[in-house]
Amino acid sequence: MLKLHYAPGSCALASHIALEEAGADYSAELVDFANNAQQSPEYLAINPKGRVPALVTDKGVLTETPAVLVYIAQMFPDKNLAPLDDPWTFARLQSFNSYICSTVHVNFAHLTRGYRWADDQSSLDDMTRKTPQTMAAAFDLIEKDLLAGPWVMGDQYTVADGYLLTVTRWLYRAGVEPERHPRVAEHFKRTSERPAVAKVLESH
Amino acid sequence: MLKLHYAPGSCALASHIALEEAGADYSAELVDFANNAQQSPEYLAINPKGRVPALVTDKGVLTETPAVLVYIAQMFPDKNLAPLDDPWTFARLQSFNSYICSTVHVNFAHLTRGYRWADDQSSLDDMTRKTPQTMAAAFDLIEKDLLAGPWVMGDQYTVADGYLLTVTRWLYRAGVEPERHPRVAEHFKRTSERPAVAKVLESH
Repeated sequence: MLKLHYAPGSCALASHIALEEAGADYSAELVDFANNAQQSPEYLAINPKGRVPALVTDKGVLTETPAVLVYIAQMFPDKNLAPLDDPWTFARLQSFNSYICSTVHVNFAHLTRGYRWADDQSSLDDMTRKTPQTMAAAFDLIEKDLLAGPWVMGDQYTVADGYLLTVTRWLYRAGVEPERHPRVAEHFKRTSERPAVAKVLESH
Repeated sequence: MLKLHYAPGSCALASHIALEEAGADYSAELVDFANNAQQSPEYLAINPKGRVPALVTDKGVLTETPAVLVYIAQMFPDKNLAPLDDPWTFARLQSFNSYICSTVHVNFAHLTRGYRWADDQSSLDDMTRKTPQTMAAAFDLIEKDLLAGPWVMGDQYTVADGYLLTVTRWLYRAGVEPERHPRVAEHFKRTSERPAVAKVLESH
């Protein structure tokens, strides 16, 4: 059985949704960030990065959301959670997921986790102030160029949709008004209403 | 024919190496960052992100290094540039590439491009000061846990090796001494000596 280590509100939500959409036999184990459990020796033995998600499989532990999402899609090919048989469309899905992890997630991390990259309180405050602007700019690109509609890749729901929903919640937490990105807002509503997604959101 | 838009010293080096290792029929077009050509209307029409790499194919333009690397591996399967037939090993390759783009590349970007996330000069100076520390920490993990040896994934050279070489150059540019990560330093030397890599490095 698969076990997902997650924290509510983190990017692990995307992997959690993918497991539920896949109909996987899995358990979800909460890592208590409030008590810094991600830095405990027990957790670091599972994931030395001290982050979530970490997916425990019978072959080993897998980390990094884009890798986890595609692996789940590959394990449950009949669920069509990624365009596995079409290298070009698959590459576009990968490009989307990579943009989310390396640009959107990173922009959001500067809201409250600027200490990863700077030390002075004034620097952290500066980063916090700028985050709504960087998040809005990234979503301008998603709204205009990356979200095909109705789903990220077009007519077929994929693992990228749960990932987009995950970071859209962050867009709103950063204080960006939903009105600025109406197509993203519609996607957020549409995705939230999927039964598998709604079930997972109860624990996030 | 494939066309790669690149800038010397950027992460596009990884895609450039992959094309050369694949024996692809491609051209490499320099985007002149010194004159801010990445923000010109002509380039933004190719890649609205205003970044490199951008790989122009007969199906469209592909961006984001992890996506480009795997796509090249899929287009030239006989070159064994990725473990395409083994989902678990493929997932581990994807995890490595994702860590490079979302953590290592991001850490390095704070050396000189902190303006992406903050406005005050004091914040940018703070980020610059901290970069050697964040780069060294990320490479501590690579040295200890991620680099199987002799290649990233073990006995088989893959697209991940050109990607690691790319960011190892940045490790040294950030001022981290090669002695701190001897296995990484050996990998850097071993990879640099491959004929395809040596050829590409001439234009980077």
